[in-house]
Amino acid sequence: MTTSSSNEAPPNCARHVAVIGGGLVGSLQACFLAEKGFEVELFEAKEDIRTRKYASGRSINLGLSHRGREALKLVGLEDEVIRNGAVPMHGRMIHSLSGKTSAQAYGKKGQNVLSMDRRRLNETLLTAAESYPNVKTHFRHKLVQAELDKGTIVILDRNTDREFTLRPDLIVGCDGVNSAMRAALFEYGLINYSQEYLTHGYMELHIPAKDGKFAMEANYLHVWPREPFTMIATPNPDGTFNCALFLPLEEFADIKIRGRQVCLEFFREHFPDAVTLIGEQELTESFIANRACKLMSIKCSPYHYKDKAVIIGDAAHAMVPFYGQGMNCGFEDCIVFSEALDKFDGDLAKVLPAFSEYRSPDAQAMCDLNLYNFKEMRSLVNSRWFLFRKYLDWFLQWLFPKRHIPLYTMVTFSRIRYGEVVRRWKRQTKIVNWTLFGMACLSVVVTGIFIRRFVNLE
Amino acid sequence: MTTSSSNEAPPNCARHVAVIGGGLVGSLQACFLAEKGFEVELFEAKEDIRTRKYASGRSINLGLSHRGREALKLVGLEDEVIRNGAVPMHGRMIHSLSGKTSAQAYGKKGQNVLSMDRRRLNETLLTAAESYPNVKTHFRHKLVQAELDKGTIVILDRNTDREFTLRPDLIVGCDGVNSAMRAALFEYGLINYSQEYLTHGYMELHIPAKDGKFAMEANYLHVWPREPFTMIATPNPDGTFNCALFLPLEEFADIKIRGRQVCLEFFREHFPDAVTLIGEQELTESFIANRACKLMSIKCSPYHYKDKAVIIGDAAHAMVPFYGQGMNCGFEDCIVFSEALDKFDGDLAKVLPAFSEYRSPDAQAMCDLNLYNFKEMRSLVNSRWFLFRKYLDWFLQWLFPKRHIPLYTMVTFSRIRYGEVVRRWKRQTKIVNWTLFGMACLSVVVTGIFIRRFVNLE
Repeated sequence: MTTSSSNEAPPNCARHVAVIGGGLVGSLQACFLAEKGFEVELFEAKEDIRTRKYASGRSINLGLSHRGREALKLVGLEDEVIRNGAVPMHGRMIHSLSGKTSAQAYGKKGQNVLSMDRRRLNETLLTAAESYPNVKTHFRHKLVQAELDKGTIVILDRNTDREFTLRPDLIVGCDGVNSAMRAALFEYGLINYSQEYLTHGYMELHIPAKDGKFAMEANYLHVWPREPFTMIATPNPDGTFNCALFLPLEEFADIKIRGRQVCLEFFREHFPDAVTLIGEQELTESFIANRACKLMSIKCSPYHYKDKAVIIGDAAHAMVPFYGQGMNCGFEDCIVFSEALDKFDGDLAKVLPAFSEYRSPDAQAMCDLNLYNFKEMRSLVNSRWFLFRKYLDWFLQWLFPKRHIPLYTMVTFSRIRYGEVVRRWKRQTKIVNWTLFGMACLSVVVTGIFIRRFVNLE
Repeated sequence: MTTSSSNEAPPNCARHVAVIGGGLVGSLQACFLAEKGFEVELFEAKEDIRTRKYASGRSINLGLSHRGREALKLVGLEDEVIRNGAVPMHGRMIHSLSGKTSAQAYGKKGQNVLSMDRRRLNETLLTAAESYPNVKTHFRHKLVQAELDKGTIVILDRNTDREFTLRPDLIVGCDGVNSAMRAALFEYGLINYSQEYLTHGYMELHIPAKDGKFAMEANYLHVWPREPFTMIATPNPDGTFNCALFLPLEEFADIKIRGRQVCLEFFREHFPDAVTLIGEQELTESFIANRACKLMSIKCSPYHYKDKAVIIGDAAHAMVPFYGQGMNCGFEDCIVFSEALDKFDGDLAKVLPAFSEYRSPDAQAMCDLNLYNFKEMRSLVNSRWFLFRKYLDWFLQWLFPKRHIPLYTMVTFSRIRYGEVVRRWKRQTKIVNWTLFGMACLSVVVTGIFIRRFVNLE
């Protein structure tokens, strides 16, 4: 690995790739690259998640949908991943303040999002990657330096506290939102970058099983829309639910300072049914003990440096979680990268720029769509107009199945490019608005004629 | 300095401030804070510029204009700064490809931009800061850590290689585009941030004096607009000019690789008169030896963390140099900060958020305006329509001196807030466009009437 060079090797032959990061995207990308015949070395800074005692709850439960499943399918992992623990969610279950619940389907019958446990999914993917003879995984191996002009990386082996230098033909950074590889790109390339925080943060809470069974309807994403607050809960295979509470960060801080009683009052006022579900003591203890996490969007372009390095997944485009597309988008990156490898016959000098150019605008569009869905989850799901438009969307899809596809369906149940999704959504919305306006005018005219006839009759 | 705390000290009493960075904005900010009675310690990572042998040419010559001069005036430094070396520029001198030159005034008679030498200006400001008994300067003192929640900073004294910790009441980061203080803010606050590169870079070149005198008209900013290239030259008090050549970065790289002859041919083709002015040998030698620098805009918000720390100048809003506002905007930051101190009676918990909220949108507006002026400098100054609009602007200003102020005048010769400048400019452009459209319609009607009468006469 230290001696071969992309200049010496003809395109399309087996070459050496260093994958930085053994999270979800890193381990899946290792599978994709292994399928293409690359010699893959995967370096993960932390210890092996399969032997870790406790994997910190770094994220809201994952919603695996079409894009992610297509990626898994391409490396033959879809069935195994689902077998290892997935609870299908057919739609949202809206909890009103009075405790009444009402279901809103995500799409057509059979279209669902799979609620997944991050840890178990990561474990499955790592084991799958290791099953390839041309993949080697190294845990407790941390990237400490990357000299991208030379194509070298320095890795610290935390088991022995020794550093060593590698010169792979390609470095793929899958090291998440605080990516060290992205920082390295900044030093060498002209990387446009933006980070944007929400004033809201989130906190994880837990709804235990009731007599070993789900305490609410299992196959839904439960939503408590309480503008400006919101809470969601996703089912786990063991009958429990993971909750994520979204509040303005200062609200979290304020309640924490004022203590348990205020916390309880807050929940009783805004989420009364959740108090029963979580349990009073568990709720207040968790709230005081747990950390409120920040929510940030990251956009970046390009994703690569020459033919040497590229970043994918959260390292390239971290997004807030309101569309459940973070992982799906990262998995789809693997497909797009694989297609670019095919298209340019493995010539990295062409593959990497093409990947950046194709993928970056799509990921940016998805980052923005997330913010729209946050609004929807906080308040719109409560509005009659929103519901009317949702039903109208489905009616129009039934009428024109190829020409009118609801936004959520395009994002979650298709592989239409995210950028194209936004363009189509805007176009569809315009058409629907004009149609509604036309119908309103028509009804005024008809009413007028009716009244006129009535007047004539007098 | 290590023991006092902002909580113990009543507002408005003398408190301790650490200024990080002894560049232009840092040394001026030290003067402003000294005037307010703060005990100021200024830490500069490099050695004292007054004793440095060679200060690397880090920037295009500086254009000091109204905003910067107002700031200097407030601490009694305007006259001294100008006396120490400033060449007034009354406007742009456009160099056509044929070598013909034509002048375009910046504004009204007497309105000019002062071409300043960065090093001399920095020296004057540092000496001025040191003349306050309540300012202490420390050179070769580098910020290595900032724990903003505790309000502490760790400084490395590079003279002794020892670190020490301070706990000032306020930390002001004036440490430029690669600000370590901004990086510290990222760790503690929710900082929205964007960086955007131009595909163009720049290179500094030099036009020597001719027989001890200026080789071109002294009192102008010379511009060679050659879309997509451009070159500018600004006068120095010693009769020389500093040039900045702007090319796409890949063009720089390409010419450098292809060597001196190609370089010379490039200049002969696009900047023939500059070849004579710079000298063939000097030109090619410099081009091959000099570095092409990148151009980046940085936007960021907020600028502060609680009542502990704030960033100003390039650390908060680096901008590309096409409006000559980088320094002026940084100097104006000092005024705005000083006014916020007055308004909130020195209560830092109010001053810092107010400063961020007031200043950040203005600096962002100025970052964007710079990009517009780059377009103007590359091509628009060559267009007849642009010139017509410029004269029309001046005519309208003469007619409505308070209601119509040309964009360049608002930016350069006023203290109208940058955000307001952009709004007024857009409004004025709309009015002018509609007026021109109206006049065009009117002339069509008049011509029609005229033709009709002519037809009737037949």
